[in-house]
Amino acid sequence: MGEPDGRCTIAVDTMGSDLGPTEFVRGLLYATEELGLDCDFKLVGKGRLLERLVKVRDFSIDPSKIQIHHASEVVTMNDKPIQALRKKKDSSMAQAIELLRDDKADAVVSCGNTGALMAGGTLRMRPLDGVDRPALGIIIPSRNKPFVLIDVGAIPDSTPLNLMQNAVFGSNYAKAALGVEKPRVALLTIGTEEGKGNSLVNATHTYLEQINGKVINYAGPIEGFQLFDGDVDVVVCDGFVGNIVLKSSEAVFSFVGETIKEELLRNPKRMLGAALSKTAFKDMKARLSPDQHAGAPLLGLKANILKSHGSSNYIAIANALRIARELVVHDMIDSISSDINQANDLL
Amino acid sequence: MGEPDGRCTIAVDTMGSDLGPTEFVRGLLYATEELGLDCDFKLVGKGRLLERLVKVRDFSIDPSKIQIHHASEVVTMNDKPIQALRKKKDSSMAQAIELLRDDKADAVVSCGNTGALMAGGTLRMRPLDGVDRPALGIIIPSRNKPFVLIDVGAIPDSTPLNLMQNAVFGSNYAKAALGVEKPRVALLTIGTEEGKGNSLVNATHTYLEQINGKVINYAGPIEGFQLFDGDVDVVVCDGFVGNIVLKSSEAVFSFVGETIKEELLRNPKRMLGAALSKTAFKDMKARLSPDQHAGAPLLGLKANILKSHGSSNYIAIANALRIARELVVHDMIDSISSDINQANDLL
Repeated sequence: MGEPDGRCTIAVDTMGSDLGPTEFVRGLLYATEELGLDCDFKLVGKGRLLERLVKVRDFSIDPSKIQIHHASEVVTMNDKPIQALRKKKDSSMAQAIELLRDDKADAVVSCGNTGALMAGGTLRMRPLDGVDRPALGIIIPSRNKPFVLIDVGAIPDSTPLNLMQNAVFGSNYAKAALGVEKPRVALLTIGTEEGKGNSLVNATHTYLEQINGKVINYAGPIEGFQLFDGDVDVVVCDGFVGNIVLKSSEAVFSFVGETIKEELLRNPKRMLGAALSKTAFKDMKARLSPDQHAGAPLLGLKANILKSHGSSNYIAIANALRIARELVVHDMIDSISSDINQANDLL
Repeated sequence: MGEPDGRCTIAVDTMGSDLGPTEFVRGLLYATEELGLDCDFKLVGKGRLLERLVKVRDFSIDPSKIQIHHASEVVTMNDKPIQALRKKKDSSMAQAIELLRDDKADAVVSCGNTGALMAGGTLRMRPLDGVDRPALGIIIPSRNKPFVLIDVGAIPDSTPLNLMQNAVFGSNYAKAALGVEKPRVALLTIGTEEGKGNSLVNATHTYLEQINGKVINYAGPIEGFQLFDGDVDVVVCDGFVGNIVLKSSEAVFSFVGETIKEELLRNPKRMLGAALSKTAFKDMKARLSPDQHAGAPLLGLKANILKSHGSSNYIAIANALRIARELVVHDMIDSISSDINQANDLL
């Protein structure tokens, strides 16, 4: 699909989220009413429940734009990826991917089991020609502007070719989702201790220099301490490092937040101060919240499959739907396909 | 040395710090007067300058406990590690290591060029028998208690043997520096996405299970989001991952701090609130400050060589001296030596 008039259809796996399908329908309402998202939606999940949930909400859009597809099963967080898809053929996740495969949708958004979504997406939709392995990209807030971190867990044992392709995926994702014309792509490394980088990163650096200026705009290596400086649009790393950086960064954020809270509650004077400056903390949280850029696409596939966090609230879900639409209307898949071929030829 | 009466001599490379030798002498004063550190100190650097700096401070300890060793050269941050040591034989860093080699000191503390210190330490003091490569361990604050992260940059391309040995180093470091009797040792990995761990970590896990209960107390794998939970005493990873985690965590901390500050200064009400709760932020910073546990040892060598951050203030320097003493009086080198032999035999 991906029709010339910019219309698009998103298949939404409404099950498998920690907050249940109600939050998905709230997210859909927020997307259409607050973000003004103009798409067709196919909600996949328990049919009667979804019908009721949609009915009680005050949607002002044409009712034909929201279709409901019944699926009797749910892939849970405990299901093993490949087994889940083989055994639960009528799960909301499998059915949503089926809509994509049958060209009845342009993108899938799911909060479900990441492994199952990745395995299902890869097996059913296949990687693009020339792509070695698809990678998960995620948008993270930093000083001045957000950036794409890729890969955050799809390829724990990466090769230099994987990292080079991650750079191409990430660059196209930043163009489509963040609207950056010429994304500055950096390579995450270490530098101040004895060894500079490791062998994987050093080999990748050579590859990135070879495609620089032709396929991507390579800004060179950066270190961990520069991650939130906001100087680059894409940071490339292997899935093991990316996953640990992402999760440990979230952990630092919570840990700092908790420590501040504890200290603020230690005496009445501090508590009064905290009460007066309460909105500052709220605004800070909103600025650093990942909700605005939720929806991590599995990049390198022949279709748009986006994973949103299992605990996504309605705002995160709405933004995942918004980003899914951006990828479709920007024909990101076509751009990645042509860039990957060009990049592979340059090595 | 490492004398039976618990006395110890620390050679201090007073040059190469961003804040200059003055800060080192302030750190020495703080260590002896405030922390009650009972050691002999050999201050290495510009002799006449050091003499003057010591003279003007109000040291109450026996003056013979502070000796000054003149060194005419300084290893700078821009010097290339191996060249620095070959060409600058009379640098404060080389001379401090020489004191260690000649058995005139039990430990070296330096804020200088990490690469040069690591290369110099490894070449002059040699790794212990059975040690493949030495690693850098660092103490990090977390909920409830601090933990050791190892390696933070010495071995960017690690093998499972390196990671197993890091576990042994880290366990002994936690015993000596943090006073933990049976440190809980965890392996940093990823787990929720498609692949669990990478091949390096999976092979290491098998090794750690083999030495569990005999050489270390293995608590199993943990993920990035658990890093600051305070459940374990040692977190093992390769130098590439550890360096990025350390530096990106510091970056998150600064980024969050700056964002809060910006928001607190946005209007007069918030500013008043911030003024009332000012001490909470100060206490939070003190709790999360790395100064209490400064001084990262290069573990696996035949001697105690500790690297403190280039920008260490006097409190950080004093604590690095304190930790150096702990490693000496606990005979950490002997314990590592015997544990490494036992661990190697178990594989």
